[in-house]
Amino acid sequence: MGVRGLRTAYRAGALRPLTVVEDVLARIAGRGDDAVWISVTPADELRERALALESLDRELPLWGVPVAVKDNIDVAGLPTTAACPDFARLPDADAGAVRRLREAGAIVVGKTNLDQFATGLNGTRSPYGAPESVFGGDLISGGSSSGSAVAVAAGIVPVALGTDTAGSGRVPAALNGIVGLKPTRGLVGASGVVPACRSLDCVSVFTRDLGDAATVLDVLAGPDPDDPWSRSGTPLPVGLRLAVPAELDVDPGVGARFAEVVDRAAARADEVVGVDVGPLREAGDLLYGGPWVAERLAVLEEFLAGPADVLPVTRAVIERGKDFSAVDAFRARYRLQELRAWAARLFETADVLLLPTVPTTFTRAELAEEPVARNLVLGRYTQFTNLLDLAAVAVPAGFTADPDGTGGRPCGVTLFGPAFSETRLLAAAAALVPMEVR
Amino acid sequence: MGVRGLRTAYRAGALRPLTVVEDVLARIAGRGDDAVWISVTPADELRERALALESLDRELPLWGVPVAVKDNIDVAGLPTTAACPDFARLPDADAGAVRRLREAGAIVVGKTNLDQFATGLNGTRSPYGAPESVFGGDLISGGSSSGSAVAVAAGIVPVALGTDTAGSGRVPAALNGIVGLKPTRGLVGASGVVPACRSLDCVSVFTRDLGDAATVLDVLAGPDPDDPWSRSGTPLPVGLRLAVPAELDVDPGVGARFAEVVDRAAARADEVVGVDVGPLREAGDLLYGGPWVAERLAVLEEFLAGPADVLPVTRAVIERGKDFSAVDAFRARYRLQELRAWAARLFETADVLLLPTVPTTFTRAELAEEPVARNLVLGRYTQFTNLLDLAAVAVPAGFTADPDGTGGRPCGVTLFGPAFSETRLLAAAAALVPMEVR
Repeated sequence: MGVRGLRTAYRAGALRPLTVVEDVLARIAGRGDDAVWISVTPADELRERALALESLDRELPLWGVPVAVKDNIDVAGLPTTAACPDFARLPDADAGAVRRLREAGAIVVGKTNLDQFATGLNGTRSPYGAPESVFGGDLISGGSSSGSAVAVAAGIVPVALGTDTAGSGRVPAALNGIVGLKPTRGLVGASGVVPACRSLDCVSVFTRDLGDAATVLDVLAGPDPDDPWSRSGTPLPVGLRLAVPAELDVDPGVGARFAEVVDRAAARADEVVGVDVGPLREAGDLLYGGPWVAERLAVLEEFLAGPADVLPVTRAVIERGKDFSAVDAFRARYRLQELRAWAARLFETADVLLLPTVPTTFTRAELAEEPVARNLVLGRYTQFTNLLDLAAVAVPAGFTADPDGTGGRPCGVTLFGPAFSETRLLAAAAALVPMEVR
Repeated sequence: MGVRGLRTAYRAGALRPLTVVEDVLARIAGRGDDAVWISVTPADELRERALALESLDRELPLWGVPVAVKDNIDVAGLPTTAACPDFARLPDADAGAVRRLREAGAIVVGKTNLDQFATGLNGTRSPYGAPESVFGGDLISGGSSSGSAVAVAAGIVPVALGTDTAGSGRVPAALNGIVGLKPTRGLVGASGVVPACRSLDCVSVFTRDLGDAATVLDVLAGPDPDDPWSRSGTPLPVGLRLAVPAELDVDPGVGARFAEVVDRAAARADEVVGVDVGPLREAGDLLYGGPWVAERLAVLEEFLAGPADVLPVTRAVIERGKDFSAVDAFRARYRLQELRAWAARLFETADVLLLPTVPTTFTRAELAEEPVARNLVLGRYTQFTNLLDLAAVAVPAGFTADPDGTGGRPCGVTLFGPAFSETRLLAAAAALVPMEVR
C-alpha cells in the first residue's frame, strides 16, 4: 500500500498505525537475511510511536507512514555506519530530512544498506551483504541506495530516503521497478548526511508511484539552516534596509570620512542594521591565501613555463597556485559555501551593504616599500565580492581630512547587494550617497 | 562631459563625433607619458569611425561616446597584452562586451594599462609604467584597472571598461574619485577577456556618475553565447517539449524497450527534439575520472589514514583523489561550465529530457567479475546529473524482451529538467510514461 492508500484506509478507520507497524515487522522477519537493513528501530519503540501518533493531527501528510532511511543519513538513536562498521557513530539528532519526515507524522522503521560511503552504483559493495533485486535471478539491486530501493520495491515500506550523487537514487529505482526522485541540489537539506561529494550530494526519495513522490517532496523541500548548500528560488526583497559594519579596520582618516557617509545614508534609509564583517574578511582571504590562486595558474601555467618575461611579483603570486591540491580546493569551497549562506542571511535582513571601498591609500613610493602586503590592504573590503556572488558599485566619497595641508587622500564607498541586484544598487547609491559628497 | 552631456550636445547639434575624437586625441597628447595607455587606435581610424557614425541611428544609447578598454579585453585590430609584452596577441574579433559597446555606437579609443595579468590592486605592477592617481601627490592609481580608471577620472573619456576579480574595478574608482560598477558575475559576458580567475572574473564599468553607469550596464548586460559563465535570471519555459537521445550506448534489450517508451511519450508530447548525449557523457566522466573524486577524499582522508577496515574497492576509488591538484580542479570546473551552458541551451529548446536510467543490468556474479568497470556502466546516464545541476525522476519502464524464458531484465527511464523543475518533471512523467508500462 502506498502513501495515498494508507491515508485512505486510516481515514476510513480501516487501519491503525499499530497494525501497520506489526505488519512491517512481520514482513521484515519474513524475508530473513535479505541484506536490506543495517539496523531496525526496536519493536517496542515502533509500537510506542504508533500509539503516540493517535494523539497527533491525522491530517499530517505522512501520518502513520512507515519510512526507511539509508544508513548514511542520521536518525537519532540508531547508529550511522555508511556501511563501514569502523566508521559507525551514534547521532543524537535526526538529519534535517528525517526531522521533516517525523514532523509530518512518519514512522522511521530503520536504516538501510548501501554501497560503502555511497561510493558505487551496484549494491554489492557492503560488508552487510548484497541485496538481490526484487526481480530475482541473482540480479544486482543497484546502488548505492540498495536497501532503501528494495525496502520500497518489496513492499516493506511505501517510502524510503536515499542519497544521489552520481545516480544512487535512480539506478536502484530502475533495477527494482520503482520511482526514484532526485530533487534539485539543495532543495532538500543535507544536514546530518555523511557526505560523498558535498557540493553534489542530494537526499533522494523512493516510492512506488509518482503521486507519493510528490507528497514526500512537499514535506522534504525547504530551507535547512544547518546545510550551507541548501537553496531555493526565493525572489529578492525590495526596500532600503541598510547594513553597515559594526567595526572596521581602516586608517583614521578613512574611518572618519566613512562615518560621515554612514550618518547621511542612515538618515535616508528606512532601517539600519549592524553587521560583523569577519565573514567577509574570511571569504576575501580565500582569494589569495586559498586555492583560488590556482585559477590564475590554470590559465598561465604553460606561458609561465616558457621563457616569458614576467614581473617577479606577479610570477611569485601566481606560482603559489602550485601549493594547493584538489582536496584543498574542495575544502575551501565548502567553507566558502558556509560564508555564502551567511551572506544570504545578511541580505534577508538588509537590501544593501555599505562599506569603504579601500581602507587607505598609498603613494607609489610607499607601495614600492611593501608591494605585496600593501596590495592586500587595498583589497580588504573588495576581494570577497565575487566569491560571495555579490554585485557592487563603488562611488566616490570625497577625501580624508587634511590637517597637514597636503590635500587629504581620496576615499570611496561601495554598496553591495546579492547577484542581479545592480538596478537597486545604482538607485540606492543615488539615494544614499549623493554625488555632492565628491 | 559624461554620456548624458554628450547625448544632449549631439542632439542639440552643438557637437559632432569628429570634434569629440579630435578633442580626445588632443587630451591624450596633452598628458604626455602618463602610463594610462598601452595602445591607442590610430587617429585616422578614429576619425573614420566618427564620420561613419553620422550615417547610423543617432538614438543608439552610446552614439558617439568615446570609450577606453582595459588591455586584458580583446579589441579587434589592437594587441591584447595583459601588460606582459611577451604575452601579446593580435585578436581578430572584439570581446563580447566590446562588440556590444560598438553596436551601441561607441568609439573605442584604445587599450589601457593594468597590473600585469590583472593581478594586483595597486596600479604599479606594469612594465608600461605606473599611472599616478588624478589627485596627484605621487598617490597610486589603484589597480588592476589603473589606466581605465584614470582615463575616465582625468576626463579623457566618459566610459571605460575594466575587469574585477578581487576589486580591480572598484579600488581604482575609489582612488580616482569615480564610479566603479562591478556587475553580478555572468551578467556581462566575459568572452574575449584574458582570464584571471575564470570562475570569478567580471567585466566592470567606470563612469563619472551613476546614471552613466546604468546606461552602459544596459548595453553590456545579456547573454554571451561565447562565455560559458554567462547567466541571467530568466524564468523557466513551460510546456511539454520532449528531448530524446539521437543515439544510445545500451544493451539491445534496453534499447528496444526504450524505443517503445519514446514512441509512446513522443505521441503525447507537443514537440520532440533529438539531442546528442556526448556532452552528458563527458560531464559524467568528470565525476570519477576527474577531480571530483577528491571531494570523497576531502571527507574521509583522516578516517582512511587510520586503521579503519574499508573495502579495497572503495578505498581504491576514493584514494585516487590524491592524484589531482587544485589547478586540475579548476580546469575541470571550467570545462564543466561549458557543459552546463550546453545543458542550459538544451533546456531552452526542450522542457524535459528522456533517457534510459541504466544501459543494462548484471547479476551479482557478473558484477563481481568486473566490479569497477561494470559499476561505471550503471552510471552512464545518471552521473552527469548533479554536475550539470539538473533535477531528475527515475520511473519504471518494464522489462527487456525475454527470448530465453528467464523473465527479462528490469528497465527504467529518467526524466531530466533544469534545477527546481521537479513539479513539472513529476507531471511530465505522469503524462508521458504512464504507470501501465510497468
